[in-house]
Amino acid sequence: MIDKSNDMYLAWLNYKKITTSGCKEYLKNIFIALESKNSIIKSTLLELEKALKESYYEEITQNLYEDESDIEANKYIKLEVKNIKSLKKNGYKIEQKFLKENKSFISISAGDENGILYGVFHLLRLLAENEEISNKTIIENPESELRLINQWDNIDGTVERGFAGSSVFFESIRNKDKVKEIMRVIGIPASSDLIREAFNDGYRISEDLDRINDYARLLASIGINGIVINNTNVHKEETYFIDNKIAMVKVINDIMTRWGIKVYLSINFAAPITLGELDTADPLDIKVIKWWEERVKFVYDNIVNLGGFMVKADSEGRPGPFTYGRNHSDGANMLGKSLKPYGGILIWRCFVYNCKQDWRDYSTDRAKAAFDCFNPLDGEFLENVFLQIKNGPMDFQVREPISPLFGVMDKTNKILELQITQEYTGQQKDVCFLIPWWKEVLDFKICNNVEASTVKDRIKGVAGISNIGADLNWTGNLLAQANLYGYGRLIWNSKITSEEIVDEWIKLTFGDNKIVLNNIKFILLNSWKAYENYTAPLGIGWMVSPGHHYGPDIDGYEYSPWGTYNRANCNSIGIDRTIKSGTRYIEQYKSPLKEIYEDINNCPDELLLFFHNVKYNHKLKNGNTVIQHIYNSHFEGYDLVERFLYKLDEIKALINEEIYNHINDKLREQLLNAREWRDRVNTYFYRISGIKDEKNRKIY
Amino acid sequence: MIDKSNDMYLAWLNYKKITTSGCKEYLKNIFIALESKNSIIKSTLLELEKALKESYYEEITQNLYEDESDIEANKYIKLEVKNIKSLKKNGYKIEQKFLKENKSFISISAGDENGILYGVFHLLRLLAENEEISNKTIIENPESELRLINQWDNIDGTVERGFAGSSVFFESIRNKDKVKEIMRVIGIPASSDLIREAFNDGYRISEDLDRINDYARLLASIGINGIVINNTNVHKEETYFIDNKIAMVKVINDIMTRWGIKVYLSINFAAPITLGELDTADPLDIKVIKWWEERVKFVYDNIVNLGGFMVKADSEGRPGPFTYGRNHSDGANMLGKSLKPYGGILIWRCFVYNCKQDWRDYSTDRAKAAFDCFNPLDGEFLENVFLQIKNGPMDFQVREPISPLFGVMDKTNKILELQITQEYTGQQKDVCFLIPWWKEVLDFKICNNVEASTVKDRIKGVAGISNIGADLNWTGNLLAQANLYGYGRLIWNSKITSEEIVDEWIKLTFGDNKIVLNNIKFILLNSWKAYENYTAPLGIGWMVSPGHHYGPDIDGYEYSPWGTYNRANCNSIGIDRTIKSGTRYIEQYKSPLKEIYEDINNCPDELLLFFHNVKYNHKLKNGNTVIQHIYNSHFEGYDLVERFLYKLDEIKALINEEIYNHINDKLREQLLNAREWRDRVNTYFYRISGIKDEKNRKIY
Repeated sequence: MIDKSNDMYLAWLNYKKITTSGCKEYLKNIFIALESKNSIIKSTLLELEKALKESYYEEITQNLYEDESDIEANKYIKLEVKNIKSLKKNGYKIEQKFLKENKSFISISAGDENGILYGVFHLLRLLAENEEISNKTIIENPESELRLINQWDNIDGTVERGFAGSSVFFESIRNKDKVKEIMRVIGIPASSDLIREAFNDGYRISEDLDRINDYARLLASIGINGIVINNTNVHKEETYFIDNKIAMVKVINDIMTRWGIKVYLSINFAAPITLGELDTADPLDIKVIKWWEERVKFVYDNIVNLGGFMVKADSEGRPGPFTYGRNHSDGANMLGKSLKPYGGILIWRCFVYNCKQDWRDYSTDRAKAAFDCFNPLDGEFLENVFLQIKNGPMDFQVREPISPLFGVMDKTNKILELQITQEYTGQQKDVCFLIPWWKEVLDFKICNNVEASTVKDRIKGVAGISNIGADLNWTGNLLAQANLYGYGRLIWNSKITSEEIVDEWIKLTFGDNKIVLNNIKFILLNSWKAYENYTAPLGIGWMVSPGHHYGPDIDGYEYSPWGTYNRANCNSIGIDRTIKSGTRYIEQYKSPLKEIYEDINNCPDELLLFFHNVKYNHKLKNGNTVIQHIYNSHFEGYDLVERFLYKLDEIKALINEEIYNHINDKLREQLLNAREWRDRVNTYFYRISGIKDEKNRKIY
Repeated sequence: MIDKSNDMYLAWLNYKKITTSGCKEYLKNIFIALESKNSIIKSTLLELEKALKESYYEEITQNLYEDESDIEANKYIKLEVKNIKSLKKNGYKIEQKFLKENKSFISISAGDENGILYGVFHLLRLLAENEEISNKTIIENPESELRLINQWDNIDGTVERGFAGSSVFFESIRNKDKVKEIMRVIGIPASSDLIREAFNDGYRISEDLDRINDYARLLASIGINGIVINNTNVHKEETYFIDNKIAMVKVINDIMTRWGIKVYLSINFAAPITLGELDTADPLDIKVIKWWEERVKFVYDNIVNLGGFMVKADSEGRPGPFTYGRNHSDGANMLGKSLKPYGGILIWRCFVYNCKQDWRDYSTDRAKAAFDCFNPLDGEFLENVFLQIKNGPMDFQVREPISPLFGVMDKTNKILELQITQEYTGQQKDVCFLIPWWKEVLDFKICNNVEASTVKDRIKGVAGISNIGADLNWTGNLLAQANLYGYGRLIWNSKITSEEIVDEWIKLTFGDNKIVLNNIKFILLNSWKAYENYTAPLGIGWMVSPGHHYGPDIDGYEYSPWGTYNRANCNSIGIDRTIKSGTRYIEQYKSPLKEIYEDINNCPDELLLFFHNVKYNHKLKNGNTVIQHIYNSHFEGYDLVERFLYKLDEIKALINEEIYNHINDKLREQLLNAREWRDRVNTYFYRISGIKDEKNRKIY
């Protein structure tokens, strides 16, 4: 069992940091102007009590007042659910009110319990940042209704693309008693993937329910209100979550519900077959429709407040409607219809493409697949169906253009999918603070001359693939906590700047020492740029080791079936996706983007190689040739990581030693990775282009 | 249990093919002018009886005569051990002698039992080829005394670089009862390498002892007289072969002894530590010396006629004398000394190099390692120590220069190591008949103006890494049997031509139909060239998928620690190993080779890129530029495989259907592999060089 009092575990909810004098009184006296049996309110009160205990080491619980007039204390907190015109769903209002006889109270009011909960977390954040509660009135409303986390957790406790240990939700008893013994006998490392199929009836919910509860707290504290609890790739065993394993879902749902978080399930489109009850999963087959109606009823009979289902269909080997000559609206609507009576929604992923492409084929373009598949179906989807679309047309590379799907399908509910777990961005070995990237995505103007023109205006919600696991510090690399924290803060209110988010997170995590603040801030705010610099250049992507996706392999995906190429030769590099001479992917964008991307002289440098095949001596807007930019950026990227280490050394004496050592180890590993990337990429392009580095730096 | 009457299993000892009239009489009457209790003679008689039964379906056994004058039959076979000046050890003489009253006998005489056995196999081969036994006198002497097979079999039944199923010697009961059950429960594929450590006491000798005996017969029939029965990489469990698992060795030894084959053991240099009896393996430590003396005594007390030990030391993670600051003669002699009293020999492998090289390092050259390590020790090794040297300086690529070690160390016993198993030459999916290659190696003039100038003159023996496994046809691909057959025939007598060997093998395997003979011959004799053509060009090697080594990955080893690079850039490709400007590897050769390889204009085309870094437009002796040769050879290589399929189709009606289908499947798989190689290599070099194919063929 891990030490739950460890600072890294407490993350940004470390109330030991609250020292604000005068707040103690407020925390001790609470008046709730609403029905207090509600489980969310119970959590709210528990959180206030926790803060009181951890910050002032007061063992006493708060005084809860039935009637405001009974309050004798001079300072108290008033929680009130009421209709306030200025508040949207889940929004809240915080203000300090002064009464006669220097009595004053902090009022947190909202239209619903979630609002109260978020308001209290906001208050506690202010206290932890040692901001005096003044006269200012705070009104906060979330930008989107669906603020989701996707867990890619498998029932056997493994996490797909997880870099922070095993699942906090599920575990297989193979990690325990019976299996330990078998492992001993046949000497298999318990980590072996080969035993994913093992013990079909040996899976269970993690025995550490407190940790699940703490994870829910962390999510609630940043405004998350929904979570898909299992991997989008639903294997045989997870199909039973809507069958004899539903009790496992219920346990998680009960915990999440306390924190105002709705639970969603990834389901297997072929479940009727997998569960051995039908020989087809054809969405227009009456047997299938009936089967799902009954199945959904069964699910909601057990979990009345389930959020709904998520489906990955016809993608990377997953079954789907194409198998039966149906389209994706047929598949999604069939499920949406069965969920409607219970208020459930159906989230349908748009990650659909041909993963059996021949590298010799220059005409097929994976980037076009989602748009081609879904855009023609606009208007066909039911209103409780939501299409979940990745930020880019490929797959979470460090730099990609925004998916053109966000510019169309005005009659369809869209959810933006972001990847918090750093699959292609350093795997939580390397630091890569992604908030600035996501901010660009949300603020990106994908349409013109229409009311809803930016991505954030055009979506109903955001989903982020979680970066947490059973590691003590949740995220493998402590600094990666900033991505989870920032994700929640940003999708609640994208107007907050990356700097503001970083400031908040550092203060809540390291305290408010100015040097610590500045140095960690330097590392975080430069980390995305550093990573982009020393990896694949100018938006080309994919130069990673196939399979695990860590470390450089310039041609690793060049001759693969995955549709992921660089087409580099001795003169030029890049994918020609232009309308005039390429795959015509650019056609999927509206004006003026279409014209901007199509014109090699207007196309932004950082995406040039994504859209164009250009000569190495092509001049970029930044004044360098493509080849010189490759050299410069790779040397600069490595140098930045070296600077990160200096910045860390400067604060060695100012931070907890365990945390210093942890970050130091990670940064040193990152430096080795950056060196390998720098040297391999530079060597590859020097060899293939034959063009020297103007600055004569060492290339092999 | 497999069908031991299947033609593919019977291989080249398929006596059903014997139809020669008039031979029956000879086979029925045997006179042995020597002590017949000897186990080798027993096997010889059994073989004659087998031939009689299978060829003429005679159930009767032969008549064995005590006294030649008792023989009434007109025709008989006379086996006689006697001293014949013209015969060396294991040599034999076959002649037909005519007596009065048209009585005649076939005399097989030799100086030892092995000679008699080999003579009988020779006779039976003649019969199977339907050659009438005429007046000709046959005298055969082996070229080298040590004619060895190395098995890379592990005690758990896996075979390192094995492409024909699991081991015929060892198996783990994990493949059986108990483990089957556990496999069922936890659903692990029985093939999983992760369970190599499983069941430390659950290993056993294969229950199919007949198959081991049949393997021994096959080896004896081609003159093999020694076998190393376990993998040169000795893991913990195999260390117990010289301890409590020696009984397993004994079983195999008893079978091999019947066929005149000496058994050798690969041992773990760190055995004293691994077996937990000492804390050092320092070869000069008196404790270690004593330990090995006692250990060797124990081994020979159990197996009196053991051939000796083989050691891979200080290589790819194996322990060795370097650990203790000793050199390889210290290590080898310590073991050789302890083996001497029992007539055992010590085989020490020269496959020593740094496998942790930095790809950025252009000065270190793996090719130089063995020579640098061993040449200075010439004269230091005891006379029962033999150095086993791979044919080339790298590692069994489809084309390499001959190891310069064969040109030096005149005072040291040398063994040539060849790889029959096709690790880098198609893995028995692709056909690659290697005899022509090995013939070049044996006949190669490595010295000048000395008596022993060719490789075969300078070695005391040859070792071949076996290509067989538990597959019904022994070698995975039936056509790969020709490599095992040819290996034995060639190292017995390197004067036989590849054509003669192919003819023999085809007749013994498919019968003597002319079209079948010509077509299979075409496939076999062109297969090495085809494979070389469609894979890595001009001796550069290593463009394979890392790890399993099948299929193309041009830069797969370019940034690896293995010392295996192509250094290709937009202008040139190849490793500069010259004396004037390169790694000076060429210095290890004697004149005139040194001068020939050093001079880019004299260096043979097929090795050009191994020795020189050359421009793509460099003109080869064959008249083409390097780049045009790459294109031509790759298109030609693929086209050859297509022709193999035509050649096979032509004989479809003439050969056993099961065998046709088997070869057809393999060739079709090879065609796909050749296509992938052709297109990736051509595309890679077209992209990097920018030079078009003169013939405008399709490059991607």
